[in-house]
Amino acid sequence: MSYKHVALIGLGLIASSISLALKRNKSNIRVTGTSKSLQTRSVASKLNLCEVFEKIEDTVRGADLIILCVPVGAMAPVVSKMADFIKPGAIVTDVGSVKIEVINQVASLIPREVSFVPAHPLAGTEHSGPEAGFASLFDNRWCIITPTENTSKESLEVVVAFWESIGAKVEIMEPKHHDLVLAVTSHVPHLIAYTMVGVADDLANVTKSEVINYSAAGFRDFTRIAASDPIMWRDVFLCNKDASLEVLGLFAEELLKLQKAVERGDGEFLFNYFSRTRSIRRSIIDAGQDTKEPNFGRRLT
Amino acid sequence: MSYKHVALIGLGLIASSISLALKRNKSNIRVTGTSKSLQTRSVASKLNLCEVFEKIEDTVRGADLIILCVPVGAMAPVVSKMADFIKPGAIVTDVGSVKIEVINQVASLIPREVSFVPAHPLAGTEHSGPEAGFASLFDNRWCIITPTENTSKESLEVVVAFWESIGAKVEIMEPKHHDLVLAVTSHVPHLIAYTMVGVADDLANVTKSEVINYSAAGFRDFTRIAASDPIMWRDVFLCNKDASLEVLGLFAEELLKLQKAVERGDGEFLFNYFSRTRSIRRSIIDAGQDTKEPNFGRRLT
Repeated sequence: MSYKHVALIGLGLIASSISLALKRNKSNIRVTGTSKSLQTRSVASKLNLCEVFEKIEDTVRGADLIILCVPVGAMAPVVSKMADFIKPGAIVTDVGSVKIEVINQVASLIPREVSFVPAHPLAGTEHSGPEAGFASLFDNRWCIITPTENTSKESLEVVVAFWESIGAKVEIMEPKHHDLVLAVTSHVPHLIAYTMVGVADDLANVTKSEVINYSAAGFRDFTRIAASDPIMWRDVFLCNKDASLEVLGLFAEELLKLQKAVERGDGEFLFNYFSRTRSIRRSIIDAGQDTKEPNFGRRLT
Repeated sequence: MSYKHVALIGLGLIASSISLALKRNKSNIRVTGTSKSLQTRSVASKLNLCEVFEKIEDTVRGADLIILCVPVGAMAPVVSKMADFIKPGAIVTDVGSVKIEVINQVASLIPREVSFVPAHPLAGTEHSGPEAGFASLFDNRWCIITPTENTSKESLEVVVAFWESIGAKVEIMEPKHHDLVLAVTSHVPHLIAYTMVGVADDLANVTKSEVINYSAAGFRDFTRIAASDPIMWRDVFLCNKDASLEVLGLFAEELLKLQKAVERGDGEFLFNYFSRTRSIRRSIIDAGQDTKEPNFGRRLT
């Protein structure tokens, strides 16, 4: 099966990047898109990202591949709205950072003759909105696809081919395992970063301008992550509660160990702990997942 | 007073960057340096960083400005070794990330006719060693100077002028306040990053290759910080125990609040928390302390 019409539900960073990546391919695929926000729709129109519609039914009508690019908490409502207008034989997929809860909420709302293929591209930046997208966002990034028991082999193949066509590498995974892996590699790191930035903001004896001016010593890295879209991240923690709490619990235990080592002045423990983490960094660079340039190669003006 | 001979004790990232920054100025200042490691000395010699000596007494002999560029735990031992060979009227300064404990350990070992000016340039990368240095490391970065009650006005002025000459902006601060500010902007963020990387490394149900491949979702940022020099960071936590534990305590309290909000599914709390941290990021970018480029402008190959 091939797709001639892709519909984007939501027009933020991910949707706009998908659209630009499809344009880059110079294919003649029709791309339609919608957002509940008038402001977002008008920016997307001005940027000529795709055919922008106000109504979701006009956006999905006749589409072969419908991609849910809204925060995970908004997926069930948008699927309810569009269900009656989806072409039989079409495929619905998504880009949500959580998979079990999205499947629980969405799968039952998908019409019988339509296939649902849950997916999650591990790509993004701290910026949001239609103007934040760029065509190379998915190049060499992973997209994890988590088929349900009802996902057909054919529709899975279409979604794999779709992501590969816009530069991504694809991995197939159990939804539950996805949610645990992402809790470690993404969700808990984000929660920790938000917390650290909140603590710095609250501190009575250190002024805000000191926090800002002296942030280059490490803190500024946390603020990038903590600048991500608050609605998206609220929904992640509402929807990936179990795995997040599991990893958070391990983190809190481990932090207590380090806190106690600092308290008792245990240099050997600290040195050993700080030594083993270097090899993970090296492996991440070797796997092409980060740059070896110092400070991420950032250039300050 | 002017300085014609700068001696670098330690030849890692900071010392080598100082030397390269002085060369960039095309001044005719003599620069000598030493490291306890033969390997480091021979790399520094090959790179032609400065006149490299094996013995600390040969390095400091005749120097006007002696800069301690070793981990903070090594400062007292090196000062003991060199004390008898420092020229009367010379200035000793340092680059340590902790100030109170360095002053406590070092100030009493400095000869009477020598002035001690504690300092801390907020600049660095996750790389270490003499090959990691570069001339622009201090450009537009802050250097915090924390004079003691015995620091003379003249020697303070010399050290201010020194840092400004190699590109830094200077701020004068109380040592105790410095240690608290740095606990927030640097020390605790590093400890948290080390902890998160340790948790990921330990997790039984997630393989190491999964952690590495899917690190682009946020985790990889933490691994950069957690790749910093383990000896330097061990010493930071041994020497800045009180302020680190104070900030860590606040962090643990705050994290518990967020954990409970996740547990009870409090979307409003999470949304409000995640919203207010965005403005700090914007201020950091406006203050020239980070790039506005998405993902720090990192380029992957």
